Amino acid sequence: MTEPAPRHRLFVDADLAAGSQVWVTEQQAHYLLHVMRLGLGAEIALFNGRDGEWRAKLAETGKKKACLTAIEQLRPQAAEPDLWLLFAAVKRDRIDLIVEKATELGASVLQPVFTERTVISRVNEDRLAAIAMEAAEQCERLTVPSLRTPLSLTAVLAKWPEGRVLMIMDESGAGKPIAETLAELPTVPAALLVGPEGGFTKSELDALSRLPFAVRVGLGPRILRADTAVIAALSCYQAIRGDWRVPSF
Amino acid sequence: MTEPAPRHRLFVDADLAAGSQVWVTEQQAHYLLHVMRLGLGAEIALFNGRDGEWRAKLAETGKKKACLTAIEQLRPQAAEPDLWLLFAAVKRDRIDLIVEKATELGASVLQPVFTERTVISRVNEDRLAAIAMEAAEQCERLTVPSLRTPLSLTAVLAKWPEGRVLMIMDESGAGKPIAETLAELPTVPAALLVGPEGGFTKSELDALSRLPFAVRVGLGPRILRADTAVIAALSCYQAIRGDWRVPSF
Repeated sequence: MTEPAPRHRLFVDADLAAGSQVWVTEQQAHYLLHVMRLGLGAEIALFNGRDGEWRAKLAETGKKKACLTAIEQLRPQAAEPDLWLLFAAVKRDRIDLIVEKATELGASVLQPVFTERTVISRVNEDRLAAIAMEAAEQCERLTVPSLRTPLSLTAVLAKWPEGRVLMIMDESGAGKPIAETLAELPTVPAALLVGPEGGFTKSELDALSRLPFAVRVGLGPRILRADTAVIAALSCYQAIRGDWRVPSF
Repeated sequence: MTEPAPRHRLFVDADLAAGSQVWVTEQQAHYLLHVMRLGLGAEIALFNGRDGEWRAKLAETGKKKACLTAIEQLRPQAAEPDLWLLFAAVKRDRIDLIVEKATELGASVLQPVFTERTVISRVNEDRLAAIAMEAAEQCERLTVPSLRTPLSLTAVLAKWPEGRVLMIMDESGAGKPIAETLAELPTVPAALLVGPEGGFTKSELDALSRLPFAVRVGLGPRILRADTAVIAALSCYQAIRGDWRVPSF
């Protein structure tokens, strides 16, 4: 048995290798030194989305800064599900929750979209990026999902990549049950689309239905809030097609 | 085509039949009269968990009260999944979210439990009951889940009903993947158990493993927060074994 992994985990930009000196951000330094009250020699796990997870030690501290030395690799970088989430921008509490939960549930790309019934016109990308990073640190991911610039749904669909299936969470009741859809899905990368509170308009659904790469999916008889639908759809995907299918250890 | 169902929906205690006069609570009256600014003759849908859903009209108003007359039944009472949720009490924001989402996702019984690592010692049952009622009104359920008095996990398990399987969300990694577990589940009523932040202790997991009605279930390689695990487990259950399996309409 090796030593247990450190309790604290930080995402950093720097390359990680044995002996790497990594200065963390001012916010991270504040967290380590003043919130967690760690001192020199304390152990922290680091990851950067490329080099796996590393055991590091607090090597130098200043008023608002901290430097860590990477010691040994704890886990190599591993493949993670290639799963996009497209979600209509919703109000602050709910969009924060969507980003936190989608990160825990292993989405690789987070694409906020504006639809006809979207009432939010601006998304605070910095706040959402910070939430995604913190959620990744806490849930033991080796990556942080890529948060894309918010765009109109039409613009995102106009540049759809070849070979990626789009599962549309369709609250109109016309969608096929999600477990059935997932079981029948071809082995290609997928994206999940969740609309705003109030759903898609009829013209949006008609247009979505005509897309050759899209399939309309149902999430049961109750009306789910947008944030619930996101979490439900991602969970079902991971359970039936994603990385929840094999025991973790 | 009949007229569309009313936009506003309220849960009431009273029996519902054609011509029933129903006085709503002071809070509901405030919502109808001052938040939604409805006037006499406005239509509201009513349900009580027994008599289906009814179209009603605002028939009389006072300073802090409102009386509705039931006009016609919109939907008959229908069977809903018999699915219990046992969840460790967690801090306010997260427990509120658990109750809201579990209601949307069709849990029939909500049982807060205290486990060895539960740090919360008191649960505000009135607040949680209000959240469950509001979520039921919004998600178009015909029932409000039954919120049970918080108990120690040991006490709940000591009086376990015969013939109900308990699926334990096991973050230790020793559980069988949830989709596989659900596919193999015998056709009996089920309960889902989600532990607190920090998970179950080893001795709790050992004791849970010895229960003849229990099965340990895994939710993938990432560490999920307690509220995320609740939503994920309920979603997978409804998708694979519950009422999401058939198209809604």
